[in-house]
Amino acid sequence: MTSSCSAIPSRRELARVLTRIDAGDPDVLRHLPSLAIDDADNWILGVTGGPGAGKSTFIDSLVTRLRRDGQRVAVLAVDPSSPRTGGALLGDRIRMVRHVGDADVFIRSLGSRGQLGGLSLAIPGAIRAVIAAGYRWVVLETVGVGQSAVDVARFSDTVLLLTAPGLGDAVQAGKAGINEIADVFVVSKADHDGARETARDLEASIRLAPRAPHDWRPPVVLTSLGDGIAETYEAIARHRAYSLACGQARARRRAHRVSHWRSLYMALLMGDLERAVSSRAGTDLRDQVATGQIDPFQAARDLVHMRAAAEESEDAR
Amino acid sequence: MTSSCSAIPSRRELARVLTRIDAGDPDVLRHLPSLAIDDADNWILGVTGGPGAGKSTFIDSLVTRLRRDGQRVAVLAVDPSSPRTGGALLGDRIRMVRHVGDADVFIRSLGSRGQLGGLSLAIPGAIRAVIAAGYRWVVLETVGVGQSAVDVARFSDTVLLLTAPGLGDAVQAGKAGINEIADVFVVSKADHDGARETARDLEASIRLAPRAPHDWRPPVVLTSLGDGIAETYEAIARHRAYSLACGQARARRRAHRVSHWRSLYMALLMGDLERAVSSRAGTDLRDQVATGQIDPFQAARDLVHMRAAAEESEDAR
Repeated sequence: MTSSCSAIPSRRELARVLTRIDAGDPDVLRHLPSLAIDDADNWILGVTGGPGAGKSTFIDSLVTRLRRDGQRVAVLAVDPSSPRTGGALLGDRIRMVRHVGDADVFIRSLGSRGQLGGLSLAIPGAIRAVIAAGYRWVVLETVGVGQSAVDVARFSDTVLLLTAPGLGDAVQAGKAGINEIADVFVVSKADHDGARETARDLEASIRLAPRAPHDWRPPVVLTSLGDGIAETYEAIARHRAYSLACGQARARRRAHRVSHWRSLYMALLMGDLERAVSSRAGTDLRDQVATGQIDPFQAARDLVHMRAAAEESEDAR
Repeated sequence: MTSSCSAIPSRRELARVLTRIDAGDPDVLRHLPSLAIDDADNWILGVTGGPGAGKSTFIDSLVTRLRRDGQRVAVLAVDPSSPRTGGALLGDRIRMVRHVGDADVFIRSLGSRGQLGGLSLAIPGAIRAVIAAGYRWVVLETVGVGQSAVDVARFSDTVLLLTAPGLGDAVQAGKAGINEIADVFVVSKADHDGARETARDLEASIRLAPRAPHDWRPPVVLTSLGDGIAETYEAIARHRAYSLACGQARARRRAHRVSHWRSLYMALLMGDLERAVSSRAGTDLRDQVATGQIDPFQAARDLVHMRAAAEESEDAR
């Protein structure tokens, strides 16, 4: 066995791999280990919440707490909506500056520049890459509305939903079905007016949600700057113990793998499509479609057959 | 030749075809004629604008104007973001109630329930269907932010961007690049405060945009309830004449066909994927992925090969 098979990649190597994953290159995933279904040593935390919920401050404190236990932590900030706001994200990251010198904290944003379904490919790939690099805890951060929150929840072991008093996003999140996927609710800015009311409203909605007797009941934790992080950490640990003991972690990681499989399959087909379209025959077909010599539907069928034929001849080689 | 080949479908038949198109069934597209590149008799109007821009009232007046010229009009309301808001859309449509008894006005919403890339398949399919049914003017209506506005613009001959004073969405639209794809700007609610300022701001941004000497320069029209519709109609007619004379319509329809081709190709592959996944071998593969017996990447490759093999055997039959 050569050492390169098992060596933990350097931060620079990891950054390079993540750039390729973020660009939607499926080939880079070929050599990454997948997250074991019963592996309790690695844990994926999804942290979602609307703008102004205080996610960056919260994650900063949580990372500090995890570091105190000697855990290596990777933070992946998922931001699909604004391909051009690298600056804004970076600004956000500056609050986490105290971890910058720490080799055991890896911080990175994932954008998946506008590709359809790109996040469902990039997120599991990035998780595998950071786990392969020895980061035991992975924090997936995203804005708590829309598809990215759903994508983050799909690949997390424990989902935290942050809200702050006066945001009104608890209601909005409820509409989007995000409340149903949260395992721990965090009310940040607990020192502000209305924090207790927000917590009470959340608790009421949790009581009302349909739930079997043995199902996990999400706790509501109040935080303010560093305060309440111990309670949050404790809530995460309780959910983790519950999830591992009751088969939830197993079921989620199975679903995680199947989602990953589907997005990989689509990425391979998309790659084939791009190759077929840019081949000589594909370019001819494209011109015929553009000028109306051939119907788009017929041309689509032709391209499917071209792709299959190309694959056959590749197999024959 | 049987009469069914050339018969114009009834409204009920058309509604049925559109339901199948909206559900992402590519087979229904097989028998639809495509929009001819040089066909100046059919014209596709894209109407986009943020919530509160007054799109429904505007379109209602525009349809009335087109009907006065004896034109048959289809209105396709594109609403991808809210699969559950059929009610809201319907409520919106109620304002167009005066056209309900008119057999020469066809109104329908397209949702493309959450499918990836669904709109880029549904919109061109729906355009073909209503043109085949003899509607010469097609109005594609959508909310002027995000992907649906881009999809609507991609399949339109003339793009109208609506805004109203005080919405601040002119700036927002500019950010999203929507301003760059508008051929006519409409400032609605011209009787409200700030309408002239909004029009002036738009005109300033149009002046600043890079443009070659012979390029179309989008006019800004002020409307209020029925007022200004004659000017809007005139602006559309001028853009249509320009576009047909200067090759823009031709270029756009070429791009329209190529986009349609790509989305059809993806839909065919997706259909194959679903069939492969739900086959006996696909189900086995899925279970192996879920339990970790096989790596998702390897399983994705296996599924691609299964699909290709299934296609080969289909060809052999």
